[in-house]
Amino acid sequence: MSDLSNNLKTLQANVFQMYAQAHGYHWNVEGMLFKELHAFFLEIYEDVFDSIDPISENIRKLDDTAPFGARSWLQNSTIDINDNEILSPVEMLNELYSTNEAIISQLKNIFKIADVSDEQGIANFIAERIDKHQFWRWQIKSTLKKSVI
Amino acid sequence: MSDLSNNLKTLQANVFQMYAQAHGYHWNVEGMLFKELHAFFLEIYEDVFDSIDPISENIRKLDDTAPFGARSWLQNSTIDINDNEILSPVEMLNELYSTNEAIISQLKNIFKIADVSDEQGIANFIAERIDKHQFWRWQIKSTLKKSVI
Amino acid sequence: MSDLSNNLKTLQANVFQMYAQAHGYHWNVEGMLFKELHAFFLEIYEDVFDSIDPISENIRKLDDTAPFGARSWLQNSTIDINDNEILSPVEMLNELYSTNEAIISQLKNIFKIADVSDEQGIANFIAERIDKHQFWRWQIKSTLKKSVI
Amino acid sequence: MSDLSNNLKTLQANVFQMYAQAHGYHWNVEGMLFKELHAFFLEIYEDVFDSIDPISENIRKLDDTAPFGARSWLQNSTIDINDNEILSPVEMLNELYSTNEAIISQLKNIFKIADVSDEQGIANFIAERIDKHQFWRWQIKSTLKKSVI
Amino acid sequence: MSDLSNNLKTLQANVFQMYAQAHGYHWNVEGMLFKELHAFFLEIYEDVFDSIDPISENIRKLDDTAPFGARSWLQNSTIDINDNEILSPVEMLNELYSTNEAIISQLKNIFKIADVSDEQGIANFIAERIDKHQFWRWQIKSTLKKSVI
Amino acid sequence: MSDLSNNLKTLQANVFQMYAQAHGYHWNVEGMLFKELHAFFLEIYEDVFDSIDPISENIRKLDDTAPFGARSWLQNSTIDINDNEILSPVEMLNELYSTNEAIISQLKNIFKIADVSDEQGIANFIAERIDKHQFWRWQIKSTLKKSVI
Amino acid sequence: MSDLSNNLKTLQANVFQMYAQAHGYHWNVEGMLFKELHAFFLEIYEDVFDSIDPISENIRKLDDTAPFGARSWLQNSTIDINDNEILSPVEMLNELYSTNEAIISQLKNIFKIADVSDEQGIANFIAERIDKHQFWRWQIKSTLKKSVI
Amino acid sequence: MSDLSNNLKTLQANVFQMYAQAHGYHWNVEGMLFKELHAFFLEIYEDVFDSIDPISENIRKLDDTAPFGARSWLQNSTIDINDNEILSPVEMLNELYSTNEAIISQLKNIFKIADVSDEQGIANFIAERIDKHQFWRWQIKSTLKKSVI
Amino acid sequence: MSDLSNNLKTLQANVFQMYAQAHGYHWNVEGMLFKELHAFFLEIYEDVFDSIDPISENIRKLDDTAPFGARSWLQNSTIDINDNEILSPVEMLNELYSTNEAIISQLKNIFKIADVSDEQGIANFIAERIDKHQFWRWQIKSTLKKSVI
Amino acid sequence: MSDLSNNLKTLQANVFQMYAQAHGYHWNVEGMLFKELHAFFLEIYEDVFDSIDPISENIRKLDDTAPFGARSWLQNSTIDINDNEILSPVEMLNELYSTNEAIISQLKNIFKIADVSDEQGIANFIAERIDKHQFWRWQIKSTLKKSVI
Amino acid sequence: MSDLSNNLKTLQANVFQMYAQAHGYHWNVEGMLFKELHAFFLEIYEDVFDSIDPISENIRKLDDTAPFGARSWLQNSTIDINDNEILSPVEMLNELYSTNEAIISQLKNIFKIADVSDEQGIANFIAERIDKHQFWRWQIKSTLKKSVI
Amino acid sequence: MSDLSNNLKTLQANVFQMYAQAHGYHWNVEGMLFKELHAFFLEIYEDVFDSIDPISENIRKLDDTAPFGARSWLQNSTIDINDNEILSPVEMLNELYSTNEAIISQLKNIFKIADVSDEQGIANFIAERIDKHQFWRWQIKSTLKKSVI
Repeated sequence: MSDLSNNLKTLQANVFQMYAQAHGYHWNVEGMLFKELHAFFLEIYEDVFDSIDPISENIRKLDDTAPFGARSWLQNSTIDINDNEILSPVEMLNELYSTNEAIISQLKNIFKIADVSDEQGIANFIAERIDKHQFWRWQIKSTLKKSVI
Repeated sequence: MSDLSNNLKTLQANVFQMYAQAHGYHWNVEGMLFKELHAFFLEIYEDVFDSIDPISENIRKLDDTAPFGARSWLQNSTIDINDNEILSPVEMLNELYSTNEAIISQLKNIFKIADVSDEQGIANFIAERIDKHQFWRWQIKSTLKKSVI
Repeated sequence: MSDLSNNLKTLQANVFQMYAQAHGYHWNVEGMLFKELHAFFLEIYEDVFDSIDPISENIRKLDDTAPFGARSWLQNSTIDINDNEILSPVEMLNELYSTNEAIISQLKNIFKIADVSDEQGIANFIAERIDKHQFWRWQIKSTLKKSVI
Repeated sequence: MSDLSNNLKTLQANVFQMYAQAHGYHWNVEGMLFKELHAFFLEIYEDVFDSIDPISENIRKLDDTAPFGARSWLQNSTIDINDNEILSPVEMLNELYSTNEAIISQLKNIFKIADVSDEQGIANFIAERIDKHQFWRWQIKSTLKKSVI
Repeated sequence: MSDLSNNLKTLQANVFQMYAQAHGYHWNVEGMLFKELHAFFLEIYEDVFDSIDPISENIRKLDDTAPFGARSWLQNSTIDINDNEILSPVEMLNELYSTNEAIISQLKNIFKIADVSDEQGIANFIAERIDKHQFWRWQIKSTLKKSVI
Repeated sequence: MSDLSNNLKTLQANVFQMYAQAHGYHWNVEGMLFKELHAFFLEIYEDVFDSIDPISENIRKLDDTAPFGARSWLQNSTIDINDNEILSPVEMLNELYSTNEAIISQLKNIFKIADVSDEQGIANFIAERIDKHQFWRWQIKSTLKKSVI
Repeated sequence: MSDLSNNLKTLQANVFQMYAQAHGYHWNVEGMLFKELHAFFLEIYEDVFDSIDPISENIRKLDDTAPFGARSWLQNSTIDINDNEILSPVEMLNELYSTNEAIISQLKNIFKIADVSDEQGIANFIAERIDKHQFWRWQIKSTLKKSVI
Repeated sequence: MSDLSNNLKTLQANVFQMYAQAHGYHWNVEGMLFKELHAFFLEIYEDVFDSIDPISENIRKLDDTAPFGARSWLQNSTIDINDNEILSPVEMLNELYSTNEAIISQLKNIFKIADVSDEQGIANFIAERIDKHQFWRWQIKSTLKKSVI
Repeated sequence: MSDLSNNLKTLQANVFQMYAQAHGYHWNVEGMLFKELHAFFLEIYEDVFDSIDPISENIRKLDDTAPFGARSWLQNSTIDINDNEILSPVEMLNELYSTNEAIISQLKNIFKIADVSDEQGIANFIAERIDKHQFWRWQIKSTLKKSVI
Repeated sequence: MSDLSNNLKTLQANVFQMYAQAHGYHWNVEGMLFKELHAFFLEIYEDVFDSIDPISENIRKLDDTAPFGARSWLQNSTIDINDNEILSPVEMLNELYSTNEAIISQLKNIFKIADVSDEQGIANFIAERIDKHQFWRWQIKSTLKKSVI
Repeated sequence: MSDLSNNLKTLQANVFQMYAQAHGYHWNVEGMLFKELHAFFLEIYEDVFDSIDPISENIRKLDDTAPFGARSWLQNSTIDINDNEILSPVEMLNELYSTNEAIISQLKNIFKIADVSDEQGIANFIAERIDKHQFWRWQIKSTLKKSVI
Repeated sequence: MSDLSNNLKTLQANVFQMYAQAHGYHWNVEGMLFKELHAFFLEIYEDVFDSIDPISENIRKLDDTAPFGARSWLQNSTIDINDNEILSPVEMLNELYSTNEAIISQLKNIFKIADVSDEQGIANFIAERIDKHQFWRWQIKSTLKKSVI
């Protein structure tokens, strides 16, 4: 069980970083697609931020305590976001895509641990998050597709 | 103007830390007052979190870019929160009280800078935040008052 | 009929005093149960305040005019609230309990006068207020019960 | 600071009196404009009543306690409302106009004290109340204007 | 029981007539108070119309059937409304006042019959209607009061 | 124009009768389909009742006054509803069907008069009512179709 | 007073049984009227379930404690519901009708006890329940009426 | 088709003028009917303003571009509003009545052009506007009627 | 009448095809304008889908039955949509534009048939659909306009 | 993965056919249960239609494109619906039951493929659809049960 | 399958008992934490009660019938709740904790049976219930933690 | 004071021109970013239009009257908008940016006049408008930034 709990702590920190990244791009994006991408990053950061609470509650349900604060999240996270404040829209989308891929991969791993640990309530929640992060994957990827406008 | 912008960046980082602290206490609080304090910390972290967006927008309005991510916020913040996951309710309230005092003091300072800089739109927003953080000050302080139950 | 009308004027003034008492305790309560009692007194003062309007309308329906203002209410009321701004939570609850008992007793008396006067519309309204004030009686009394927490 | 706090207590009492006055006129008004003025006085008393709570909270934020009850408000108020229950519509409007003028004047004074005391959160709240009471001033004054119907 | 049922049928017809009268005045009123009275008659006819359904259901609860249609309501009603399409505002208010008085008187009578018949559910409903029709009585009467505008 | 206005008065009276008929059947229907038909008649009477107000407003827009009350509607209507309180469900549906057919026919006639009179605002409203009454025609007719359940 | 309190406990148990019966029929009903009766039983069980809370609060207002749980309700109830899971729609309606009749009878009895005990708040609540259970009586009875479809 | 498009441009400018007129009277009206007429002019200006958007969209649907700005509207409009800021209520109503009459007349003309041009979507929209402006015609006219109050 | 009914069946099938086309483009669109066009196609397919129900009800009102299912709609439709799943955004917009033009043309034809058939309720509905499809025409056309971004 | 994607395409087409079938029966059903079944088929078609969007999104998440249009869906579907427009209610229910059984069977198969493919987000969505289609199975089956009405 | 169905019947009875226990404690709790625990038990009983309906529907989806009533639930349940009406808050929390633990354990067992039986729709629902009951486990346990207030 | 009032009149006219400009661009914009800019201009014109009413009310509060109509606004405004109906998106954004800059500059000036005049209610309102127009400044400027898409 402590394996599951530790994995959720890493997930919490990574998910927090993805939230911050999307929120930061929401503020700093520029160019003719400003309004479109400003709104797109908003959709993403709101969804990702809202998952931090249930992830932390699941850590508590496993009788562990939930980390918090910039220092803890920096230590616990296994992904390094690009926090450069000046990026082009395409760079922003590519950076977010990478972060999202890393989280999908971690989520699939945690699903298996929860399943083996007989924690079906948690497994069920993780499955819903996989669904959502694959949704962002499709949407970011489609946006990055080259096309005759 | 760059003085105002830099002060807002410090404020953004400090406010983020206060949000994280209140959210962390929301998860980890224990004892017979669990439900009451769980709800109290929720009220606080939601209000504080919701102020991060307009603070960052104000940085952007000053033609600067807005920092983001655990690393940036850790570097920029001037307050050190107690991120110990196991504290008694009274300790949690005392810690939040200190953080809140530091933020009120910084807000009053920024108000004057904005006023001098002729940035009345920002001064007005800061005044509203002073009002809200003094509200939390009153509520936390009243809760900490000793009384024959 | 003028007997009923005069009784409603006394009720209006007493109910106003109970509203003010609950609102005052809402502001001044302190201690670890601050949030719980702050919310409890809010529930009470909102309900009691909302009854002032229909009481006054009933006076008007009886072709009389409705008194108003601090001077009138002070003269007309038959209960003396404890307006000390510094009381312990238990003292506050005990004081409100006494005020509420006095109002229940007056309401039961007015019900009989309205019934005898064939004013069934008013009697019906008074019965609903009895129901509500007995609700507050149960809730305040239960809160005052001593128990191993 | 205690100067500001005492001024807010007087304001609280005066505002309470204006609320009661508007509520009383709401009940007792008569004549062909009954529905229009009944609704007008409702708009006014609801707005004025809703300002009592934040005024009292501001007293608490200054570490003082908030007065309550008919006796306190009668002692603290510096305006004397006309609580005659039988007035013509024009008399009611004139009386309310005078009360409102007195409150605007007091609000402008308190704004300066708050500004000098570096209480920008309170100053900001007072500015909003000035705005609202000047709104009622305009509306009452326009209604009192003589015109060929 | 059949006595109660028959009284409810008369009430249903009379209440229907009062609804139609208020709706008709809503359409035909004219003069500088057009908007005020147009809205006032709307308030009245909506409230009165909405009482037709529960009155009819109460007839059904007594195992009787509910009459309907202009012919039935004309035969069953004991009041004769003034259906002149051209009346001054004051005449309209006076006519509605008379109709309302007749209905209050009938309601008080039915309350006693329901009480004696042990039909407390119906008695309770009738008491609420007395309350509402006395509300209209107060409002119409106050509007008709002569006053220096 | 007076031809159009008179036709709208007849329509108003007929539509009122159809409303009353549907409301009456709503109360008095019985049998295993009680809940279904009780709800069906409700849908119909609410829609039909809500058309009385705009019909009457259109009469007013043509500078005529709008009739009201059981006596007027009985005189003005050209259809005679079956106000027998005890009918089988099938009889009720057949009776409503006939009333509805008569109203559709009258509406189509009024549309032409309004069109010729250059009253396109009224013609437009009448077209919407034709649409709705043909909706009820389809629904009632489908319900009356014989079928192996 | 203890007589009233004991009667409310029996009522609470009986009302619980009626709720359970309606919920059970909601699940198990079959036949071409499935959707209609499934929805009808839902309406009934929701209304009846919602009355359990105020009944229990009234027991508490009388300074007594409120029973709960299958064992208590089985012991306290004076009606025996038919909990056969396979009944025809008509049998279900007949069974519910009987339970409802028993509850109406008990409610009328409790009204008198509350009235004699000067508990007008409770009497008022009981009157509203009589009204509602007579509503179900009419609706179930009408559904059970034989008719040429 | 260009004839229709040009007529819509004139309509857009005239409708804009009527909106501005009603908004201006909303601000500047005075006298005992202040609240009633203040609200009446609000109803009118909101409805009229909301029609500017679909009128302009219809111009776009005809492959033309939509004019905007004070200069364009002043040039395109065929009606001259009375923009005197100090008028009596009766003068305001008379002025609005005239403007409204001019617009109804223009709308009826455009309806015919749209009909002949086979632009049924636009004709339908114009018919709804005729309906609405005739509604204002009735309401303003009724208000202007002399009557024993 | 059967001519009108048959035309509505063709319309139903064509409208269904346009709905499916817009929904398909909503799923498959790619490129930097992904979010914008994804949302645009959503607006279109929801509006078009919602028109299928009233079109089919109108067929039923004409005493005919309504076709359904992929086979029926394929046979009845007179337009052939481009169901290639990989198109550039500009191709998608051009394809939808063509489909929309064909439907506008058919709608204008049906309007005339309904008008001649005295089916004003249907004609009115068709006019509203013309309005909406011309709205999509304007919006798609404006999007396709070449411009220096 | 392409196996999963192809299975989802078949599912999309079959689900579309079930939607169309339920919508078609919604329009064409007749008989005394018209209102009940009309509403029942509405509930079903709305739920089934709303699942087409997430099914198609899941195809996109697997990096495939989503088919659309009557031709595609006809080719891809593996079930043949009865699109006869004139069926008795019982035939309609039986036909829908068969379609639903086929879809449940296919869903259970897809769940296994998704599970084996480690696509837990999709598996989770499919499980919810199984739950919903089994809900319709129960409701249709219960309706088809023979019973003494 | 019958094994799954029988397990769901036991679950239904146990869940019903937990609902009743939480509702009973909601009524009878006393002491200074009255308001907090009164609200806490409300949250729990509402969530638990709302799960009875889908559990019963799942029994029906398995072609079995759903038990109901105090007698059935008493027989079917495998847990014995403490229905003593006078317990201290700590005793209440401990008792609810035990009941909840028993239900979590049963839910985990049923999940496996559903999984093996290929009933993924039911397994999915059970997983959500595990999640929720573990939520209550965390919250009750945290409340019971000893702490220096 | 008259200085403040005159400045507000100029502001009202300028703000009106900016509203009209944004509304006009909303109608006439074309190109692949049509939907995005169409929505962006909507956001702007709605916010700016909604500020006209409080600006005018503030003029009234200063005992002056409020101008209205195209002629007045054209005379009073100090900015000249580009009302060319055919501009590229970039030209539209640049034009709006200039107008907005002029208004920010005027607002900052009015703030100082209001502050000096002791009109804190108006100063407070102006500060909020500065905040909002600087928000539009940031958003328009970011959109105009050149970037590799």
